[in-house]
Amino acid sequence: MRQPDTHPLATGMPAEVTVYEVGPRDGLQNEPTVIPADVKAEFISRLVDAGLPIVEITSFVHPRWVPQLADASELIDLLDQAGLRGRVPMPVLVPNERGLDRAIEKGVEHIAVFGSATEAFAQRNLNRSLDGQFEMFAPTVDRALSSGMAVRAYLSMCFGDPWEGDVPVEQVVSIGKRLYELGAYQLSLGDTIGVATPGHVVELVEAFAAAGVPREAIALHVHDTYGQALANALAALQAGITTLDSSAGGLGGCPYAKSATGNLATEDLVWMLHGVGIRTGIDLDSLVATSTWLAGILGRPSTSNVVRALARGNDPDGHPPPLTEGQPPR
Amino acid sequence: MRQPDTHPLATGMPAEVTVYEVGPRDGLQNEPTVIPADVKAEFISRLVDAGLPIVEITSFVHPRWVPQLADASELIDLLDQAGLRGRVPMPVLVPNERGLDRAIEKGVEHIAVFGSATEAFAQRNLNRSLDGQFEMFAPTVDRALSSGMAVRAYLSMCFGDPWEGDVPVEQVVSIGKRLYELGAYQLSLGDTIGVATPGHVVELVEAFAAAGVPREAIALHVHDTYGQALANALAALQAGITTLDSSAGGLGGCPYAKSATGNLATEDLVWMLHGVGIRTGIDLDSLVATSTWLAGILGRPSTSNVVRALARGNDPDGHPPPLTEGQPPR
Repeated sequence: MRQPDTHPLATGMPAEVTVYEVGPRDGLQNEPTVIPADVKAEFISRLVDAGLPIVEITSFVHPRWVPQLADASELIDLLDQAGLRGRVPMPVLVPNERGLDRAIEKGVEHIAVFGSATEAFAQRNLNRSLDGQFEMFAPTVDRALSSGMAVRAYLSMCFGDPWEGDVPVEQVVSIGKRLYELGAYQLSLGDTIGVATPGHVVELVEAFAAAGVPREAIALHVHDTYGQALANALAALQAGITTLDSSAGGLGGCPYAKSATGNLATEDLVWMLHGVGIRTGIDLDSLVATSTWLAGILGRPSTSNVVRALARGNDPDGHPPPLTEGQPPR
Repeated sequence: MRQPDTHPLATGMPAEVTVYEVGPRDGLQNEPTVIPADVKAEFISRLVDAGLPIVEITSFVHPRWVPQLADASELIDLLDQAGLRGRVPMPVLVPNERGLDRAIEKGVEHIAVFGSATEAFAQRNLNRSLDGQFEMFAPTVDRALSSGMAVRAYLSMCFGDPWEGDVPVEQVVSIGKRLYELGAYQLSLGDTIGVATPGHVVELVEAFAAAGVPREAIALHVHDTYGQALANALAALQAGITTLDSSAGGLGGCPYAKSATGNLATEDLVWMLHGVGIRTGIDLDSLVATSTWLAGILGRPSTSNVVRALARGNDPDGHPPPLTEGQPPR
């Protein structure tokens, strides 16, 4: 259909966007099914082949908390054996200095830390206060930078918190700026519970820019819990954001799980980006094939609308099959 | 959470939007389960109570084609008995003059006709050529206007067609303008197969405006087949559109059906509209309760993200319950 296309919005948008792929880490850690390390390595290999420019591959968090990613070191060895590391940046989430030790040991060149914009989530997720989390991050980021690593910082609960409700923009900017200024090259603003709406996204980006965190250093990490993810991504593009987080096949948003976080599916994002004429370097067909393959291993349909729609197109339901990339089944 | 809210986007958007509810017609005609007329009447009554300003209630199409709506006359009688007609406009879809006869007989004051922007769909859905459809619509609309009815015109396949692929903007504008100029007060542009992206939406609206069909007379009818529905709705608002079609609970987009059309869920749309500070007159809690009730009757979860997320909030899964309207479960 109109994929790729050249319909710039009247408001102007970037010509190129970096899709930051979180499926192997944020996606798989929220899937009930634990998949073997060699399947993860193949998944990452296929994502790189499909043109994803950066892939967050795993986390050095304690296996007690995230058993799905207990094989982080083994996975990195497999990627090395396959000659995959270095083809694109492959950040690893590192919660603290102990995680950093493991990252250094494995020669990881790119890490991500995960902070909270609210007191309640800092207490529950990090067992620290809003202030106290920095005692953990400061030495971690310092040592990572000294080791020559690139550091990305996630900030969660930027648009709302299930315990606190509204989160003041001033508080998010204050905590986020502090986290960024530890030395991160990028700050990913997370709508962890999916409650954001487009105006809120624009407001927060503008507030960060006014406080001196440049738009080029901001990424948006949206969840589709309330169906708002792609509209929020569009608003972010209009506000000058050029990095968007998403999860191949919508991994981590299993519709059968009560705790579904509803990651934005990379395919649905790429459909929109290509549709409005924004370059990503991603081959949508290869990506859809990858997510279809992984859904088979997970034993359930993908939560990506694009993946499901194209899969239906292959069914003998009386509609003509897709003719071109992005061609709909009916 | 931030519902209702006051975050106007930098690009400016309307202060108020009309949500045109298509659930009882476009939604239920695509559901495999046929529900009784008295349940439909209660559904419509609850939608009106929830503040929906206009509700398309049924269709006078031949029952052979749409058995789900075979009870159109009975439903209208029930609405009359309940004193519901007249509370808000309740358009009825009328495919041709025979349908119009039934509408006149029942004292219907508001009808909708359903045209095609492509030759292939005109042939398959209407058994007419692209030109030939006007031989059917012209006398239907003429007689409806003479009878004092308001006439809405749908135009389907405006953004892509499964048989023809791309549909040129010039063709859509030419056919749409002709349909509008038969005497319709509003032209609803349908992304029947859900392939549109935001730039395409803006381009089509601008082309219609340039051709003399005012933005105030244009509605957008999006489908979520490829996950683009809400982003496209946002783009339409930015292009000055003030009427958006949607379906309560996402009715008609059954995830188990191969032919899922994926109507945009009214709740997901309203979440966004209220979030950006646009008035709708709709009470989201009442609407969610209505869709939850109907999902129970249909025996499956709603396809609305908002309805599903709020339903999870009532589960004893360790997360605090919603605190306010729109408050998320986690």
